Amino acid sequence: MATIEDVAKLAGLSRTTVSRVINNHPYVSEAKKQLVIEAMKQLGYVPNSSARSLRNQKTEMIAVIIPRVMNPFFGQLVESLEIAASEYHYQLIVCQTLYSAKKELDYLNLLKTKQVDGVILTTLLNDWKQIEPFLDYGPIVLCNEYDQKANIPMVHIDQEYGGYVATTHLIDQGHMRIAYCCGNIKSNVTKAREKGFRKAHSEHGLQIDPKLVFQNVFTFEDGKKVLQKLAALDNRPTAIFTGSDEVAAGVISEAKKLGIDVPTQLAVVGYDNQAITELLDPMITTVHQPVKEMAHKAMNVMMNQIKYKNYKTKEVYQLPLSLIIRNSTCLKSPERLN
Amino acid sequence: MATIEDVAKLAGLSRTTVSRVINNHPYVSEAKKQLVIEAMKQLGYVPNSSARSLRNQKTEMIAVIIPRVMNPFFGQLVESLEIAASEYHYQLIVCQTLYSAKKELDYLNLLKTKQVDGVILTTLLNDWKQIEPFLDYGPIVLCNEYDQKANIPMVHIDQEYGGYVATTHLIDQGHMRIAYCCGNIKSNVTKAREKGFRKAHSEHGLQIDPKLVFQNVFTFEDGKKVLQKLAALDNRPTAIFTGSDEVAAGVISEAKKLGIDVPTQLAVVGYDNQAITELLDPMITTVHQPVKEMAHKAMNVMMNQIKYKNYKTKEVYQLPLSLIIRNSTCLKSPERLN
Repeated sequence: MATIEDVAKLAGLSRTTVSRVINNHPYVSEAKKQLVIEAMKQLGYVPNSSARSLRNQKTEMIAVIIPRVMNPFFGQLVESLEIAASEYHYQLIVCQTLYSAKKELDYLNLLKTKQVDGVILTTLLNDWKQIEPFLDYGPIVLCNEYDQKANIPMVHIDQEYGGYVATTHLIDQGHMRIAYCCGNIKSNVTKAREKGFRKAHSEHGLQIDPKLVFQNVFTFEDGKKVLQKLAALDNRPTAIFTGSDEVAAGVISEAKKLGIDVPTQLAVVGYDNQAITELLDPMITTVHQPVKEMAHKAMNVMMNQIKYKNYKTKEVYQLPLSLIIRNSTCLKSPERLN
Repeated sequence: MATIEDVAKLAGLSRTTVSRVINNHPYVSEAKKQLVIEAMKQLGYVPNSSARSLRNQKTEMIAVIIPRVMNPFFGQLVESLEIAASEYHYQLIVCQTLYSAKKELDYLNLLKTKQVDGVILTTLLNDWKQIEPFLDYGPIVLCNEYDQKANIPMVHIDQEYGGYVATTHLIDQGHMRIAYCCGNIKSNVTKAREKGFRKAHSEHGLQIDPKLVFQNVFTFEDGKKVLQKLAALDNRPTAIFTGSDEVAAGVISEAKKLGIDVPTQLAVVGYDNQAITELLDPMITTVHQPVKEMAHKAMNVMMNQIKYKNYKTKEVYQLPLSLIIRNSTCLKSPERLN
């Protein structure tokens, strides 16, 4: 394995000069720079970023903790975070918990072991008091999930409005029995959406039937199962708020199999505006979340945290969202509500 | 922030005893153990895993480098790798290159900086000679991608057979003009699939029209564009091998818009057997890759590399795949070929 001394020898220059070229130090002539680069290439020498990193005490890495890579919402969020990190010359590493609270804490250890400069949490599986001690070692930013108890920056989307606008749209179409699906019931994202769902009902004097509420529903398969349960009811709902495009796709797919027409017998609303919403027939009415904007804001906030080392200050950023109406709720031409 | 000394003081025990409890050392009485645990709880003290990790020189982390989290094939591979890593009490961190060769090298630096114990590469964006020097710092395992020049373990799927069996199926259905899509043309995965595609043609004395070959095709949107180009041809193909379920879904979606019937006017074959293949109408004929088995084998091989520190030995594991026939190529009832 080539060393910096080997590079110096081959280039016919001092070790100091080689080191200066590697670290982009000024006052090195272009000719010497070329000699060093050529020697590095010939020897296959790669500068030791470990040494560089120890010097400036930075890893230039951010960890993002997500529940599932396969969930398209989190996939899109990770992709946007990675692009945002790159703009700051940071690398992003992705940690998947599969909804394990223990794994969330294990990954937060990356801060303590100085393997990353900061952690972005997109869900919260532990109580805030279990997370807080990690702030002694580096910054944590909440992105998507939020918690009033947390004394850190949080960037999230107005989920209450998301639940409200989607449900109001269904009620406006004449629906009075609306089924409801949600994911992790401990999440504040879930709670806010449900608050919006309830608000739309109470504004119109409508009741929610507990038989039509389904919790911990995440996947295509879950959506299929929900539809099967609805189909078995004597008093079926005429619409469903699924909380996820994947679940909506599962519901629609299974409805087709059982001969239930969407939207005339069952109107279906997704959430996230993923690619699949435009590929299915009927195309899926959904809620567009500004994922890219959220990712950019979260990374921007993280960079400030790293720069100013002010880890324990609460800052709240809430971004708006919009309903996209397609044929799974409505046979008329689509429109967009903000 | 509480220190080990604070814990010792509160528990009324020596620092050594506290350290023994933290490290599960034998010869500590249950009573003392409880005192230490109680003191740790009260002070919110978390043992410093950095110190522990320095002692045994392991991070218990594996990095996997993938091109895109949003690509469902890689998403599924990451999920399976994460589950396999957990079984060995390892954490998996995911690094996304977005097809940047520079990022691939940047992430390989995790080995040099001792931030991970090993790296799994699922694509190869650099020449092997640029990757090889990193083996001085830790093990690298190829999973999915492979390279004859590489002197490391590699676990991959028989892609030539994948291209061959899908194309032969189309030819058996009477197709003689078959369009072909592929992703990254430098990849050996891509080259092997194309070899299978060509082999099936030559076995039946058929020619491949270069106008029907599309490279660097990855997404739904790419699939839509390919269909638009095909629709504009005077002499259209009657079938298409898309190399990806996402591309196949884009092709089918756009074909519907332009009034081209699938499969009677255009038979479509996907690749990967993702959930979407069963959600579209028609359901998509596709090639099932044994992703879970590949992930488990790759992680098993990685653990052996870490254990025996024998980083520069070539081992090749090739796994079989199977064609799943659905209605996008065939109106008859589905069957499965191995």
